[in-house]
Amino acid sequence: MPSTIRVSTDPGEPGSDTESRAATCASIEGLSTPALLLDESRMMRNITRLRARLAERGVTLRPHLKTPKSIEVARRVMDAPGGPATVSTLLEAEQFAAGGVRDILYGVGVVPSKLERVTALRRQGVDLSVVVDNVDAARAVAEHSRRTNDRIPALIEIDSDGHRAGVRCEDTGNLLAIGNTLHEGGAELRGVMTHAGESYSCTSIEAIVAMAERERFAAVGCATVLRAAGLPAPVVSVGSTPTAHFAADLTGVTEVRAGVFVFFDLVMAGLQVCAVDDIAVSVLATVIGHQPSKEWILVDAGWMAMSRDRGTASQRIDQGYGVVCSVDGVLYPDLIMIQANQEQGIIAVRSGSGASLPELPIGSLVRILPNHACATAAQHASYELIRTGSREIAAQWPRFRGW
Amino acid sequence: MPSTIRVSTDPGEPGSDTESRAATCASIEGLSTPALLLDESRMMRNITRLRARLAERGVTLRPHLKTPKSIEVARRVMDAPGGPATVSTLLEAEQFAAGGVRDILYGVGVVPSKLERVTALRRQGVDLSVVVDNVDAARAVAEHSRRTNDRIPALIEIDSDGHRAGVRCEDTGNLLAIGNTLHEGGAELRGVMTHAGESYSCTSIEAIVAMAERERFAAVGCATVLRAAGLPAPVVSVGSTPTAHFAADLTGVTEVRAGVFVFFDLVMAGLQVCAVDDIAVSVLATVIGHQPSKEWILVDAGWMAMSRDRGTASQRIDQGYGVVCSVDGVLYPDLIMIQANQEQGIIAVRSGSGASLPELPIGSLVRILPNHACATAAQHASYELIRTGSREIAAQWPRFRGW
Repeated sequence: MPSTIRVSTDPGEPGSDTESRAATCASIEGLSTPALLLDESRMMRNITRLRARLAERGVTLRPHLKTPKSIEVARRVMDAPGGPATVSTLLEAEQFAAGGVRDILYGVGVVPSKLERVTALRRQGVDLSVVVDNVDAARAVAEHSRRTNDRIPALIEIDSDGHRAGVRCEDTGNLLAIGNTLHEGGAELRGVMTHAGESYSCTSIEAIVAMAERERFAAVGCATVLRAAGLPAPVVSVGSTPTAHFAADLTGVTEVRAGVFVFFDLVMAGLQVCAVDDIAVSVLATVIGHQPSKEWILVDAGWMAMSRDRGTASQRIDQGYGVVCSVDGVLYPDLIMIQANQEQGIIAVRSGSGASLPELPIGSLVRILPNHACATAAQHASYELIRTGSREIAAQWPRFRGW
Repeated sequence: MPSTIRVSTDPGEPGSDTESRAATCASIEGLSTPALLLDESRMMRNITRLRARLAERGVTLRPHLKTPKSIEVARRVMDAPGGPATVSTLLEAEQFAAGGVRDILYGVGVVPSKLERVTALRRQGVDLSVVVDNVDAARAVAEHSRRTNDRIPALIEIDSDGHRAGVRCEDTGNLLAIGNTLHEGGAELRGVMTHAGESYSCTSIEAIVAMAERERFAAVGCATVLRAAGLPAPVVSVGSTPTAHFAADLTGVTEVRAGVFVFFDLVMAGLQVCAVDDIAVSVLATVIGHQPSKEWILVDAGWMAMSRDRGTASQRIDQGYGVVCSVDGVLYPDLIMIQANQEQGIIAVRSGSGASLPELPIGSLVRILPNHACATAAQHASYELIRTGSREIAAQWPRFRGW
């Protein structure tokens, strides 16, 4: 099979090909399945949409690169090769720094044991900033700044929706204590950040708009509290894919973070943040069997290829483990992956639908759109780049993983 | 931090260290979190238990290596360095063949496009057998056997529980058609295999015993049908971790497959197949914050480190994203990961429990036992080997991934 492109399978070296590889005359049919397809046309459309929206409002986009984990995608979603960007792990920071990104926010609360890696990157000239939401962590950042003679920039995480970490807006005593600990202790207090993770649970666009305003209000309010106390807070960073696309007012906000929008997924489509047709990633799978009495089609993509994410289970339409399209990306009516074993998926018509099962003989290829692009992409070592309407593989882009 | 062992983070080379690496004087405290710990003492106890059980019954263990994806673990769970073993992907077959395994069953229905890789391994001297459950795939295997002048050994998959793929026992016409297509077409009909995946949904040991008998009955019955028609069926292969541990009768069975038992997990503990104390893998995490008003502890392990698997959600006790232990592996009463973001987990006392939240300051280490060992281990590039009661890292064993 000379035209076969395989994900690198040298023993122990998945994804060792760090340069993007141009595929010559290769097509989807030559891929070993399961494989992760990335539709560049759709991705660029998604990027253009959010960038245009934020440009109109004069707000910087600081894309979250935890979704792509690929320097090739990062270069297309960032304003410039140097950033700005957001990451969720220090490995992401290290990998993107190696790819030339110079302005990086590490968006998960930092702990003392990780500060050496922060310093190592900052010594390479990376403007890496960190996040804290408590005095203990702030003290550790300040002490480390003094010890290394480098004012580490830190944002205070604000809890705008009760979703996870962060200081609550009304807890101004704590907010100022953290701010003072950083500012007077030797770190650089750069401002505040918040993430409206609860926007993923909204059931209407109106609710997302309201959530966006709540996110803005909390962040701007906390920045105002810091400034009123004489503390610096130049950066007011907010964001989640839903709120970034529907915020009506961004007054006082200096930057917006969003990640999954670059690919979109069924959860975002269920929230009406995008259309199903905007989803840029899919898993290519091969039909390996049928259970005619049950009207099942079996494919060689199970949860290892799709992830265990069932994010649409709590939405109005439960998409199972994903929505099934033809090899060319055309949706089959109501065809979903209803169950997933480790390396086998079971495809069937959605319960209650009148649609009929398509004719898909053994060896047929299908594409499966994921519930959650971050989780599904994370199961793969590379992207096979395609364009809408074409079966040609334009390139293979490696992804990294780990911490 | 000279004592830090980090998962290989060279750009694009996660897990590129194919040799196990002895760690000198390294301890859990020096690991970068999140990290996957493997307790060798518990693992060896789990292996010994099942091996002894099957040895008593004179049945071969053909361990499923999709769980460990590590040659080091494989060597400890197999009877001999050459196998036998089961795999779920051809990459697993290739990786384990490179590590010296010579008797491998590829346990997921094969399709024509994968037969070249099968042949490549067989030409290296690997006794790689495949699985089919339909005439089309059987014909492809037979034709490929003739073309390559190599009788590819094939097992017919039997559907013993309606769980996924396989020929139904009563469908003897189909069974014989597949058998004849293989045997007369030029392949080697080696027998039958079945997997009682539904045993994961059992709610009592009695139900598992019954499921094991159903699995045995279906496989032995189909082998008998084949033999009565003059077809060979030397191998009768059954198995799942629950049925392997509780089958009362294995008459007529020649080999048992099981995978997750090597590590065990909360789903298996919920099924009473093991005790929570038998679970050999855990995710080491660092406390990064607190939400005192909600009695939450935040850690730097989210679903990327734990996987999205929520297998205990349908069991009597829902363990959230995992059960929390001290750094030394001692359970905290009723402490579980109730929510997971990509790189943050929220730990809290189980709803309704009277237990109190332990004092865990910023920077504290905890271990989290997973719902599903296969899914959680798959999120990591290596195992950090420990022994029960010790904090010393004895070795780092790489895992592979991909297809």
